[in-house]
Amino acid sequence: MYSFKNDYSEGAHPQILKALMETNLVQEEGYGEDDYSLKAIERIKEKLGRNNMDVHLLTGGTQTNLTAISAFLRPHEAAISASTGHILGHETGAIEATGHKVLSVESKDGKLTPAGVKAVLEGHPDEHMVKPKLVYISNSTEIGSIYKKEELQQLSDFCRANQLLLYMDGARLGSALCSKENDLQLSDLPNLVDAFYIGGTKNGALLGEALVICRDSLKEDFRYHIKQKGALLAKGRLLGIQFLELFKDNLFFELAEHANRMAGLLQEALTQTNVKFLTHSPSNQIFPIFPNTLIAELEKNYAFHVWEKVDADHSAIRLVTSWATKEEEVVGFIEELKRWL
Amino acid sequence: MYSFKNDYSEGAHPQILKALMETNLVQEEGYGEDDYSLKAIERIKEKLGRNNMDVHLLTGGTQTNLTAISAFLRPHEAAISASTGHILGHETGAIEATGHKVLSVESKDGKLTPAGVKAVLEGHPDEHMVKPKLVYISNSTEIGSIYKKEELQQLSDFCRANQLLLYMDGARLGSALCSKENDLQLSDLPNLVDAFYIGGTKNGALLGEALVICRDSLKEDFRYHIKQKGALLAKGRLLGIQFLELFKDNLFFELAEHANRMAGLLQEALTQTNVKFLTHSPSNQIFPIFPNTLIAELEKNYAFHVWEKVDADHSAIRLVTSWATKEEEVVGFIEELKRWL
Amino acid sequence: MYSFKNDYSEGAHPQILKALMETNLVQEEGYGEDDYSLKAIERIKEKLGRNNMDVHLLTGGTQTNLTAISAFLRPHEAAISASTGHILGHETGAIEATGHKVLSVESKDGKLTPAGVKAVLEGHPDEHMVKPKLVYISNSTEIGSIYKKEELQQLSDFCRANQLLLYMDGARLGSALCSKENDLQLSDLPNLVDAFYIGGTKNGALLGEALVICRDSLKEDFRYHIKQKGALLAKGRLLGIQFLELFKDNLFFELAEHANRMAGLLQEALTQTNVKFLTHSPSNQIFPIFPNTLIAELEKNYAFHVWEKVDADHSAIRLVTSWATKEEEVVGFIEELKRWL
Amino acid sequence: MYSFKNDYSEGAHPQILKALMETNLVQEEGYGEDDYSLKAIERIKEKLGRNNMDVHLLTGGTQTNLTAISAFLRPHEAAISASTGHILGHETGAIEATGHKVLSVESKDGKLTPAGVKAVLEGHPDEHMVKPKLVYISNSTEIGSIYKKEELQQLSDFCRANQLLLYMDGARLGSALCSKENDLQLSDLPNLVDAFYIGGTKNGALLGEALVICRDSLKEDFRYHIKQKGALLAKGRLLGIQFLELFKDNLFFELAEHANRMAGLLQEALTQTNVKFLTHSPSNQIFPIFPNTLIAELEKNYAFHVWEKVDADHSAIRLVTSWATKEEEVVGFIEELKRWL
Repeated sequence: MYSFKNDYSEGAHPQILKALMETNLVQEEGYGEDDYSLKAIERIKEKLGRNNMDVHLLTGGTQTNLTAISAFLRPHEAAISASTGHILGHETGAIEATGHKVLSVESKDGKLTPAGVKAVLEGHPDEHMVKPKLVYISNSTEIGSIYKKEELQQLSDFCRANQLLLYMDGARLGSALCSKENDLQLSDLPNLVDAFYIGGTKNGALLGEALVICRDSLKEDFRYHIKQKGALLAKGRLLGIQFLELFKDNLFFELAEHANRMAGLLQEALTQTNVKFLTHSPSNQIFPIFPNTLIAELEKNYAFHVWEKVDADHSAIRLVTSWATKEEEVVGFIEELKRWL
Repeated sequence: MYSFKNDYSEGAHPQILKALMETNLVQEEGYGEDDYSLKAIERIKEKLGRNNMDVHLLTGGTQTNLTAISAFLRPHEAAISASTGHILGHETGAIEATGHKVLSVESKDGKLTPAGVKAVLEGHPDEHMVKPKLVYISNSTEIGSIYKKEELQQLSDFCRANQLLLYMDGARLGSALCSKENDLQLSDLPNLVDAFYIGGTKNGALLGEALVICRDSLKEDFRYHIKQKGALLAKGRLLGIQFLELFKDNLFFELAEHANRMAGLLQEALTQTNVKFLTHSPSNQIFPIFPNTLIAELEKNYAFHVWEKVDADHSAIRLVTSWATKEEEVVGFIEELKRWL
Repeated sequence: MYSFKNDYSEGAHPQILKALMETNLVQEEGYGEDDYSLKAIERIKEKLGRNNMDVHLLTGGTQTNLTAISAFLRPHEAAISASTGHILGHETGAIEATGHKVLSVESKDGKLTPAGVKAVLEGHPDEHMVKPKLVYISNSTEIGSIYKKEELQQLSDFCRANQLLLYMDGARLGSALCSKENDLQLSDLPNLVDAFYIGGTKNGALLGEALVICRDSLKEDFRYHIKQKGALLAKGRLLGIQFLELFKDNLFFELAEHANRMAGLLQEALTQTNVKFLTHSPSNQIFPIFPNTLIAELEKNYAFHVWEKVDADHSAIRLVTSWATKEEEVVGFIEELKRWL
Repeated sequence: MYSFKNDYSEGAHPQILKALMETNLVQEEGYGEDDYSLKAIERIKEKLGRNNMDVHLLTGGTQTNLTAISAFLRPHEAAISASTGHILGHETGAIEATGHKVLSVESKDGKLTPAGVKAVLEGHPDEHMVKPKLVYISNSTEIGSIYKKEELQQLSDFCRANQLLLYMDGARLGSALCSKENDLQLSDLPNLVDAFYIGGTKNGALLGEALVICRDSLKEDFRYHIKQKGALLAKGRLLGIQFLELFKDNLFFELAEHANRMAGLLQEALTQTNVKFLTHSPSNQIFPIFPNTLIAELEKNYAFHVWEKVDADHSAIRLVTSWATKEEEVVGFIEELKRWL
């Protein structure tokens, strides 16, 4: 049984574990004030090509989203999310638990557009309704699509013109930035969004997300929020050491490229056999549509999520690759598939 | 410079890192449903000698406290804490951020008594005030003291007679249970408290606390709360592997014993030189009172917290030992001290 | 200019003001423990034909909804509402501000059905999502429709079979119960819902809603929640005196019948002139569709809300009648309309 | 039985009821946008001698406190209150329910001083603790004392120098400003505090508090918060009409003067008979200390709160007068007292 279920089935990239071993007995400050965290933050700023931003290391995506969004919003303000957005339906109401409504915009491709956001604004004209304030996007999205630079620029322009904050969930940012279709660079993001995070958990770390706060007015006292939400690790070094490894050279991007290449191999083979896909996905998650009978066969040797019923006889499944996906397993999966298609 | 600042200055016990290495590429389920977590939980239940309880693995103390307490209380209910309690003053209002007041009971030794809790109940007779519902204690306490079995039994009896929940913060439970003065066993706790956690972060893990829910009515749907508060790690294996190492034999207790022994060496040496202590502390934190001039000298080679001003010329410092504290450093510190005393 | 904008444009029914005058200098207990409130609550219970329920008097609809729903739910639980529901879009995120998500079910007629609720349950299978727990309905709904007994019975059966709480917002319950199409009685409600409120503000009171808690498990400590949410009036007598007047005889129903009769006159006249309506509305709110040019004419002498654009040239408007609506004004409006239609 | 229990035992001043009668059938806008509310707000601004501030009419003290404080603070910020402060112990954790800790400063006279606030700041140096941000004071205080102009000036200066907001709970502001010892004017307040409210409920209204927001940065979107907390009355006219009556001439001050005069009569008579008081109280609440035997006698004909046990044989009681207190009842009480003293 080999799993294409997600990108967090294995531990960490061996280089990260090695760094944890080597530094293990060095005494360090607690709560993210250790040298590794400070250096990792410097390294991330270098990669961003900017110094005037705050970087904080947190443990997971839901935690980063709820800590950031609750810190950024006043009580009457709401977030706007695509209908597929992780905060909308897959975080157990974490944002609402901090007091804020999440407004949904129906989206076929997982992305938000200025038109979609504008409609929300028009539907919320006065104090009898929440005030939409923060636009939440994911890149890559929950269904594998990515934002092109032009799309993000337009959304960014719209947000600025309408006093909206733009926040990017980067749980799979590595995969997005390393996509063949991508034309965004990491260093573009501070110009386009007000805050975003660089996902480590799904790209080779044991855990860890690096939140980057670009807008000055959102920076103040942020460590208070991290502590209050239970997100400030006593041994913050655990996050620092990992991000230092990911960013001291280009490991972060190399791992994402591997994941994408593996997904690309699958996608190419499936396309050749005329398999259709639920969405256009140039990243490490793909959603092929198979006959249910085939799915039942595949499930004997492979683990994956059945994503969505398409018709009475067909369903889309989700195949996810990662830094740890073995090429021989991908080849094996393709071969097995070809026996049935 | 050697640090006695806290018990989280180093990484993890080598055996834990080794286990992380060895299991690294095994594919596992996410979100705490991996085999390591399931086994770790079984092992903990065995150590508790009870099967009818729920165990959940979370990342840190503040997070465990806020997730548990907010899940256990209704909106109008409050927690009661000693004035030294961690949730009262050192978690950035994490409990209040979930909507609940924390009521303080003045305490000299860090512990709560039935009399102290009773006074709070008497001061909150009706619906114009919060309803005290959960008694929060720490063992060992924030100032190094521990609960004797008889004390805990009395508090437990009082709580049950008054429909109060009793919750124990066990960030340093290992040190408490391994104290020379201790007469409690881990397996006593389910009989005495409604929920408690076994601290891993301060006893050899990179991170991790094992929450044990003893009372049936508190168990339902608890994983929803973990997810909502951002505490459900995608790679839950990270917690499972560590707790499995800590509890598969007796590593958890061995590490705590080492920490206590190191603190004991310090305490003994200081007592011999007639140093006074701020509190009676039979665990891994001690609070000797020194002349400020001596403190200044010690700070040249050792890191520690200056805890409290005692008079114009004296202050108490906090010295903390851990599983990683080196005996030769303790000896060195004592020698340096003797040069000055 | 005469207003059909809403049912809260005037003060209170004169009999209520008279009672306020007559009792004004009698000294009473504060915080809802005055004799008037106690008597009003008794009278409401008599009308309900049941003694085993708790009744609380609060000031307004949003306040009643947020106080009740936040008291009834645990942190991970969510409410389900029709897409037209007041708590979903017209209370500034009041429910979310207490920590709970509100899940929307698309609804054409303002009502929820077992099928709609079932779909929500099926979409929320595990702890990565909120747990749907409370079904929120309004009667009459925000768009004037009402629940027939059979519909409510089916919804109630479904909720009980699925451990869901059923809560009815009765801001316009008087109008619903006095509708010509209604077959529900006030005394049926305790058998069908777990809690509901009887709206006073929109039926002749200066302010005031009477929350009825039917399910025993929801009753405990409810006054704490009222106080905590700022809803416990020092001079609770203000609410008690009003509800006593409304329910000591049948004033509550007489006022609602008048409102409905006025809306019926409008509806009948419009139907005769072949005007179409946005919704089927047998209560005190009707939504006729007019040419925009006609709306512009009407706005010269009448105030009302333009509810929704129907096509390029037509819009639906909302006409609301109340206990205070004057029949001659209704007649005048019809005459003016006929000049144009 | 005559009650000196509180200042909300009766209804409203007759002039207010008369105004409610006279305006009853005038159609008005809802939600505080009626002409009466707008005029009342203008009148209050005139009395304040300032135009650049926002005034909002809310229903009660707890509601005003929680709506304002939760709107003013970010999630990690806390309020500071005297140990006697209403928000600290008598509002069922209403502030905590919105997510904010309330820090207590021990106070003998019910007032806060710069020294007391400074100690709180010093005890909260970093992100492991809440950030004290808002200083909550009451005038008159919960135990009858009042702030002299110089005291308030010093507190105000300290707050501004330390980036703290200063908020005054004016549930009994009328009584404070009309005290013989008072040297503050209503028009001084905008220079000294950032926000405050003018209490109507305890000074002749059926209900109603007028919140004045002085600091520009606190004004934005405040109506959203009122709506979200359930504090925006559909018939806002009810508040507008009352405040218009209270402030169109000087009714507000006349009523408070009467209340103070009645308390003064009691105080004078008691002082002549050498009765001691728990606190120095120049407002409408006094706290004489009586033998418990005398208290038992008085309770046969008078209602009041037994405030605090003073020694085995004596207790302090609270006597409260109001706009409605009858002079003959005060005289009667004094006569009865003299029979016993």
